[in-house]
Amino acid sequence: MRIQPFHSETTPDRGELALLREIRRLAAGSSSAGLRLGIGDDCALLVPRAGEELAVTTDLSIAGRHFRLDWHAPEAVGHRVLARGLSDLAAMGARPVAALLSLGLPRSLTVPTSRRPAWVRRFLDGLLTLAAAHKAPLAGGDLAESPIALADIVLVGAVPRGRALFRSGARPGDLLYVTGALGGAAAGLARLAKLAQTSRPNPPRIPKKLQALLAPHLYPQPRIAQGLQLQRRGLASAALDLSDGLSTDLTHICEESGVAAEVDAALLPLHSGATLAQALHGGEDYELLFTAPASARLPRQIAGVPITQIGRIVKSRPGQPSVTLLTPQGPQPLMPSGWEHFS
Amino acid sequence: MRIQPFHSETTPDRGELALLREIRRLAAGSSSAGLRLGIGDDCALLVPRAGEELAVTTDLSIAGRHFRLDWHAPEAVGHRVLARGLSDLAAMGARPVAALLSLGLPRSLTVPTSRRPAWVRRFLDGLLTLAAAHKAPLAGGDLAESPIALADIVLVGAVPRGRALFRSGARPGDLLYVTGALGGAAAGLARLAKLAQTSRPNPPRIPKKLQALLAPHLYPQPRIAQGLQLQRRGLASAALDLSDGLSTDLTHICEESGVAAEVDAALLPLHSGATLAQALHGGEDYELLFTAPASARLPRQIAGVPITQIGRIVKSRPGQPSVTLLTPQGPQPLMPSGWEHFS
Repeated sequence: MRIQPFHSETTPDRGELALLREIRRLAAGSSSAGLRLGIGDDCALLVPRAGEELAVTTDLSIAGRHFRLDWHAPEAVGHRVLARGLSDLAAMGARPVAALLSLGLPRSLTVPTSRRPAWVRRFLDGLLTLAAAHKAPLAGGDLAESPIALADIVLVGAVPRGRALFRSGARPGDLLYVTGALGGAAAGLARLAKLAQTSRPNPPRIPKKLQALLAPHLYPQPRIAQGLQLQRRGLASAALDLSDGLSTDLTHICEESGVAAEVDAALLPLHSGATLAQALHGGEDYELLFTAPASARLPRQIAGVPITQIGRIVKSRPGQPSVTLLTPQGPQPLMPSGWEHFS
Repeated sequence: MRIQPFHSETTPDRGELALLREIRRLAAGSSSAGLRLGIGDDCALLVPRAGEELAVTTDLSIAGRHFRLDWHAPEAVGHRVLARGLSDLAAMGARPVAALLSLGLPRSLTVPTSRRPAWVRRFLDGLLTLAAAHKAPLAGGDLAESPIALADIVLVGAVPRGRALFRSGARPGDLLYVTGALGGAAAGLARLAKLAQTSRPNPPRIPKKLQALLAPHLYPQPRIAQGLQLQRRGLASAALDLSDGLSTDLTHICEESGVAAEVDAALLPLHSGATLAQALHGGEDYELLFTAPASARLPRQIAGVPITQIGRIVKSRPGQPSVTLLTPQGPQPLMPSGWEHFS
């Protein structure tokens, strides 16, 4: 809708068209096996291989909710926006085919300063660097001026028909696994918040000695290779990605599969610097949580990322909590305590 | 990112999960030939038919830019959000397969009042009614709390390989056509703005005698059937949908095809109540603009919607405007004067 008069003359060199052209130029280098037509028409065109299904997901990131302009460098925002979508593909065992991006920005974020490129240019640098690493070309999207910065990322992936990993496939007797380490994103966020309160400029420059601690939060690595391996080798009975936190996401698996689960606190692979609470409820680790029959021979690592058994799937019992945490003090119900909007 | 403490206890019955469940329930009735897995997992799964390509598009709508909470009934906002995406599929000659929706809302819009259902429920009613009419099931999406209302719609469609309509196929000698009538959306918006200024409650109730005039703006009809016919019968050499206005969108065809165009002002099918300026620059009519060789036998209407020749494609000449408007006073350059963000 044209809230402003729709006859307003435009200045193509500085407006949406110019930004579109810049994005098109930046994205032009990338492609994938399945992308036939990228930015420039009404739709992107994708060609799946014979026998493939397409997986589609969309994730919304809003300034002040999912990131903060005064905490996060634009490159990290761009990386995180894309990582959320890629992680959903990883959870289904899909290979990336293309990404589309809807971007709403205040005008100030589209204008370069005398010292630095525009915020949006640095945001795109972060996003496109991760996109190139996972062969997920930017194939389209939308732009709008907005009072707050926001980005909705669409990922399209492909998976051989009937091979996708679902949340609903866990069975009693299956064992429960995670990739990588847990709680690193929450620990990194806590450290970043402290840093932002005491430092100028904003967003803070990250000192070298803190970069490893903050990396899981600022530059999470979606487990595409691990999801693909699990899918190709038929190892997992159910899977999802840890975006909301183990306590919440495991509850999703239990609900969709009609089962319950036990987690051994002692087995949890805590990220260096993370607490047990951060590992259980922190969210945004973007590791894969998956189940496999006890008879499955799981590798100790996939593409350099450790695989750790953290518990098991059991029968659900009416009136009992879906997830139980086994601790030295005995079993405790583990209630979903991750992030929820509108709660 | 968890700006708020990530341990906050949630109230599942009233929070995001409850809203998700509601959407899942509302969307459950719908399906399409290509949808294998809808809401409830990390991704939706789509199965194209053999020999089909997939068309994907995303369109962002933001309160205050694309709609106004004090002007537009929630049902109209939902309809318009989906219509934008469906219209992009129509422009490629694709059939709808599925829609995904990312929704950012202030909490107040998710809560019913004593007299009416929640804004979001009425928004979904409008969106899902149009989705059902075009067999475009809601297959996934994302929800977030947001200081402003916004919706990003993703449409996935399918088209036989090599048959999609592009912006880039227009050739000198082709004739230029539109479906339906032009300027109706801009005329309707102007009338709605007047109504909103003088009426209580907001958004205004639309009097019966104004409903036909406001319909092209409030409830635009994406030309899916017309795009499919053009694609199946191989009639069009290029096509797009009129979202930004004829002057801007025709310039897109000229740029992508490397041609110029002449429009006969006298031939333009003005919507009842619309001015020539509204037909040229108003935008949001969501009619199809397309070209066809002069030898093509175009029907006078497709599925009840008239087809009108409005001009022709000519060679582009360096230094000359892309689009010329032929008027009784002689030819005039027609500069793109539609909506542009960041301009």
